[in-house]
Amino acid sequence: MNLENAFANFTRRDWERESVDGTVRLAIVGVGGFARQRALPGIADGEYCETTVLVTGSPERTTTAAEEFDVSHVLDYEAFLEGDHADAYDAVYVATPNAFHGQYAVAAAEHGKHVICEKPLETTLERARAVVDACEDAGVTLMTAYRLQTEPSVRRTRELVHSDVVGEVVQVHGSFSNPLLEYADADTWRLDADLAGGGAMVDLGVYPLNTTRFILGCDSEGVYATTHSSDGAFADVDEHVAFQLEFPTGATASCTASLDAHAASRLQLVGTDGRISIASPFGGVVPHEMVVESGDMRMEYTGPPVDEVREEFDYFGYCVLTGTEPEPDGIDGLTDLRVIEATYESARTSRQIDLA
Amino acid sequence: MNLENAFANFTRRDWERESVDGTVRLAIVGVGGFARQRALPGIADGEYCETTVLVTGSPERTTTAAEEFDVSHVLDYEAFLEGDHADAYDAVYVATPNAFHGQYAVAAAEHGKHVICEKPLETTLERARAVVDACEDAGVTLMTAYRLQTEPSVRRTRELVHSDVVGEVVQVHGSFSNPLLEYADADTWRLDADLAGGGAMVDLGVYPLNTTRFILGCDSEGVYATTHSSDGAFADVDEHVAFQLEFPTGATASCTASLDAHAASRLQLVGTDGRISIASPFGGVVPHEMVVESGDMRMEYTGPPVDEVREEFDYFGYCVLTGTEPEPDGIDGLTDLRVIEATYESARTSRQIDLA
Repeated sequence: MNLENAFANFTRRDWERESVDGTVRLAIVGVGGFARQRALPGIADGEYCETTVLVTGSPERTTTAAEEFDVSHVLDYEAFLEGDHADAYDAVYVATPNAFHGQYAVAAAEHGKHVICEKPLETTLERARAVVDACEDAGVTLMTAYRLQTEPSVRRTRELVHSDVVGEVVQVHGSFSNPLLEYADADTWRLDADLAGGGAMVDLGVYPLNTTRFILGCDSEGVYATTHSSDGAFADVDEHVAFQLEFPTGATASCTASLDAHAASRLQLVGTDGRISIASPFGGVVPHEMVVESGDMRMEYTGPPVDEVREEFDYFGYCVLTGTEPEPDGIDGLTDLRVIEATYESARTSRQIDLA
Repeated sequence: MNLENAFANFTRRDWERESVDGTVRLAIVGVGGFARQRALPGIADGEYCETTVLVTGSPERTTTAAEEFDVSHVLDYEAFLEGDHADAYDAVYVATPNAFHGQYAVAAAEHGKHVICEKPLETTLERARAVVDACEDAGVTLMTAYRLQTEPSVRRTRELVHSDVVGEVVQVHGSFSNPLLEYADADTWRLDADLAGGGAMVDLGVYPLNTTRFILGCDSEGVYATTHSSDGAFADVDEHVAFQLEFPTGATASCTASLDAHAASRLQLVGTDGRISIASPFGGVVPHEMVVESGDMRMEYTGPPVDEVREEFDYFGYCVLTGTEPEPDGIDGLTDLRVIEATYESARTSRQIDLA
């Protein structure tokens, strides 16, 4: 690859290979902060999806959002499970607390609807497998909502790595931290082990985990981790996690996540012949500041960010409309849950857990 | 601490607390590339040391360096061990391959000379302990040559951390890689396990290890590591290492080192209320590019680098002349060797090794 060209048309959608007609009509199940502030606007701004149904525990408090985004139906969860207005949507975006993902995703599949499900797919590998099985049985598309896989800086990084710009990747460092309690109450479901399935690892660690696997194009074969939690709000889950992944290539990934630290994220890959660093890859709006070193060459890219949520939903819509299997499919989600469970096992036993 | 003032007088020598007369006359034992290219010029440029003796296996090939730096005596190792011209020097800088450190450091102590010894102190904890004991018995100063502890960017970082600018440090990432075979032959002593005591961990990993311990001001209580080596030149030692340290505060440090990857280094500390990042801290010339975030504030410092080798020898000279115990003392060197040995044990057993 010519390094100068690597950054040309930085935000190109390399996944968009044919022209497509129509849109996928979406039911959003679970209308929390992310759905309101990011998903609804992102979908409205995109090409291949539109939101036609909102499913929420409090329909009366969702009228403003419904009006603003011209949504035709607002249902409660029971009505959704019973299939009310199922002809008004083609696919379901599951954005509830993690422990409810399975219930609604399986119901969606049983209604014959495609599914885009927030990460992690569920709170345990076993529960997540039920989602994958249901979608497979119903013959519907299942995408795990790893928005980073449609983020241009991550896709360009993957291309650079696969084009041998940094040689063989030797060591990855990924970090993601966020002061959860600055924008959520202490009783947030994210700090409830049953509802969330875990803490920092589940909510934030999965970003460097999944993104590293995506860029390297292979699965980790071992993981070691330690977790730390203070008393109080974080007593039930991992407040901080540090984990180290082993890949079959010999590469390692040294990752950290914290629900109770300064907001920051970073991804760096060092290879035998170069280095790629992305500033703030995981925080939701990627500033598109990348440094690439290849041999003696050094290049910096700075460009305007894209709305990665719009990109994510357009990718999902495109996959549904064209019958393309999404890269972040159900298996991708299961793979990460297997690593997450192994992470906690490692933290309990102080041993590396074999994933091969 | 007022954040604006943190960078004022960035390169100040906060360790220089009294005015000092005279200089420490140094014998350099082992005149390799680092001694010629960095130590001799750094010492000459500094205030508190001067090189009066060179000790080398090939005195006839050292005449140019001796003339250039106005050195009065060039000895072979045997003459040094026998104490020839011992009245011409006050202290000894041991810069031989690691496995010979002990022999010359102990001889220096027995001659009543102060010692500054390259890192690691020796190839094993046991052999290093003999150095510490000999210096203690002789009542001479022993400094382990951790030049990063006199590097202004590291000292400023320590001050910022101890002034609570980032809150409690939660997660550290440190990395250091260097393509050894681009400037050394495959038969270099650094790839000989007996002479070096190890590979990437010993030669490079010790930088993020020691620097993190220095900044946090405490010792790690557990370590996990994996090592990887290809056949050929790296068959005898760890070509790559990834290790994760646990500190009693709950902080973790995720570190990597490689003798066979693109030249790069970085140190990042994320705390409960901020972040500090040093670009390229370990490569020998630190560019003095730091980013500090504290709450909502973000500051970048960019300034001209200093010669950290000059700083290191001036610090040693100052300590000897004022009777100050150096911070990177023998115990500091022993502590790292204990971690290094635990790192290799962890890599063999895939378990966390307890250091508490």
